[in-house]
Amino acid sequence: MKKIAVLPGDGIGPEIMAEAVKVLNALDLPLQLDWADVGGKAYDTSGHPLPPATLKLAQEADAVLFGAVGDWKYDKLERSLRPEQAILGLRKALGLFANFRPAICYEQLTHASSLKPELVAGLDILLIRELTGDIYFGQPRGRRTAVDGHFPGADEAFDTMRYSRPEIERIAHVAFQAARKRSKRLTSVDKANVLETSQFWKDIVIEVHAQYPDVELDHMYVDNAAMQLVKAPKKFDVVVTGNMFGDILSDEAAMLTGSIGMLPSASLDANNKGLYEPSHGSAPDIAGKGIANPLATILSAAMMLKFSLNQADAAARIEQAVQSVLAQGLRTADIWSEGTSKVSTIEMGDAVVKAI
Amino acid sequence: MKKIAVLPGDGIGPEIMAEAVKVLNALDLPLQLDWADVGGKAYDTSGHPLPPATLKLAQEADAVLFGAVGDWKYDKLERSLRPEQAILGLRKALGLFANFRPAICYEQLTHASSLKPELVAGLDILLIRELTGDIYFGQPRGRRTAVDGHFPGADEAFDTMRYSRPEIERIAHVAFQAARKRSKRLTSVDKANVLETSQFWKDIVIEVHAQYPDVELDHMYVDNAAMQLVKAPKKFDVVVTGNMFGDILSDEAAMLTGSIGMLPSASLDANNKGLYEPSHGSAPDIAGKGIANPLATILSAAMMLKFSLNQADAAARIEQAVQSVLAQGLRTADIWSEGTSKVSTIEMGDAVVKAI
Ligand SMILES: CC(C)[C@H](C(=O)O)[C@@H](O)C(=O)O
Ligand SMILES: CC(C)[C@H](C(=O)O)[C@@H](O)C(=O)O
Repeated sequence: MKKIAVLPGDGIGPEIMAEAVKVLNALDLPLQLDWADVGGKAYDTSGHPLPPATLKLAQEADAVLFGAVGDWKYDKLERSLRPEQAILGLRKALGLFANFRPAICYEQLTHASSLKPELVAGLDILLIRELTGDIYFGQPRGRRTAVDGHFPGADEAFDTMRYSRPEIERIAHVAFQAARKRSKRLTSVDKANVLETSQFWKDIVIEVHAQYPDVELDHMYVDNAAMQLVKAPKKFDVVVTGNMFGDILSDEAAMLTGSIGMLPSASLDANNKGLYEPSHGSAPDIAGKGIANPLATILSAAMMLKFSLNQADAAARIEQAVQSVLAQGLRTADIWSEGTSKVSTIEMGDAVVKAI
Repeated sequence: MKKIAVLPGDGIGPEIMAEAVKVLNALDLPLQLDWADVGGKAYDTSGHPLPPATLKLAQEADAVLFGAVGDWKYDKLERSLRPEQAILGLRKALGLFANFRPAICYEQLTHASSLKPELVAGLDILLIRELTGDIYFGQPRGRRTAVDGHFPGADEAFDTMRYSRPEIERIAHVAFQAARKRSKRLTSVDKANVLETSQFWKDIVIEVHAQYPDVELDHMYVDNAAMQLVKAPKKFDVVVTGNMFGDILSDEAAMLTGSIGMLPSASLDANNKGLYEPSHGSAPDIAGKGIANPLATILSAAMMLKFSLNQADAAARIEQAVQSVLAQGLRTADIWSEGTSKVSTIEMGDAVVKAI
């Protein structure tokens, strides 16, 4: 019996999670699902976005299935109490340093992209983002009086970008291994022409590369990567980068597909325990309307089965079922187009279950 | 007599600069042009990418017209000697804190974009990037032994992101004033949900907004901005952001137009002295072939006349001449398409001169 912590969160989180759980149940696997509040919902019920009970559940589980967090109504809270602290807290507490963000353009949804169809048809990028280091967690940070710079004596705020050798080594290994299973091409993104942290990143990625001579490695500056993703996204296969650049580029890459409602993600620790969540957000504007796309969450459950629960066959069944509902022409509002059938969140979940 | 420091630089720099200078000369203005080496070229001739003589010339000039720097052959040099240090050094030494990066989609070139024509037709974004602060110049930075974090005792590299109150205030004023002259809408981009520096940035932009009640201000996280630029770029008008995020987003926005060979930029100090350069790079792969597009540099010269030399009429003449050569169907290779006439770098410069 494997234990899964189910954390629906805010906005559309509960609706999309209900469908993913329906799909998991339909597979009849030896899973125990334990639910808990997280994000704004948890703040409302217990005063903190990541209450100790939720964290404990996540720590004791074999995997975490996460919906989405955030709502405008929490914008006024101090930062440490805002919903997104839950996700940062979980990443840190569980040591989820390797974030897998596929950007896949489904054949039937190519037209949904902002880009010309020939540029995105068949797009399949795997962006690997380091998730527990960098300027996200670097200390010191805060406010102080500037002692140098342009305005000594003025108030200033500051953060610390940092990466240690073992942090870079482990994410590089993850990335080279992932590239080895795909096209054997890896692009490492940094800003080594400006940042010490990036130069160190690049040096170590080159070192680790010696252990993967069958993988072709190239390096790209982050500004150029942001451009090349727009210009010729299909030139990328596996991309590895730090937490901050990965935040920006993974979202840019996801949006290139035009169907971010389809994109799952995985955040793994050193032992393949992971947190799985859709790449999209909590979309409070459409919450409760029954129109959200549950497929990214359903596909996140598939990633969970494959990466953390050693159930690759069950994962493949979900993925095939999703392909089949798309082939049937079923679409939630976000991916709907002329000639296809618009369905609700629940109808989409039901259709996936039926296809399984 | 106004003094202009002309710094052609590397790669295609000398070729495109020759055309911009030809255009300036054709206007018959009281300008004195002084040339100097910069970047890899300067390293080759005097051992440093920004030799004292070049810096002095730039400091004494009323404006700097800059080509481009960089070539693979300098990749192996230590960072402080690499060509791009010239541009960082000039920004810092001249206090060029306000970088204007227009992303304009010319009517005749709409098809060149990766995006569907309806999404970019008429696109006209002004991205304002802070250029002398942030993690680009923040101290301390370097390598050390980690004392905390995931791997205490390990080697690590680090950089400091920082912004002081006056640095944020002055770029916010520049941005609100620019927005006031356009659609009166300003988007400030940050990562305030994670970074102390961003929260401070956001707080101060909100404070400064009180002096510009006629301008509508909104805030966007950098990851979301990277997505929205792909999804619906025309929703943006004026965008202001820090140095690091601005580096990434300005290049992404430029590439959306599909014709980065057309885009000028300006980097201004507090007194409207500025450095003007094309948004594209030195393109060493096509250097010397006579096929580079000189229009971004020619339009940078126009920005220089308008912003730093109080010659708005002359600037408008250049801009109209560029419109006119496009209307005539003349295109360098990078923007050529079926049915238009392919011209060389020199032919393009000549055509602009003729149109003036
Ligand atoms: C909510 C936020 C803190 C988070 C991040 O920046 O990592 C989100 O944007 C993401 O990418 O998961
Ligand atoms: C060359 C590099 C240091 C520079 C930067 O990052 O600012 C460039 O990318 C730019 O945007 O002008």
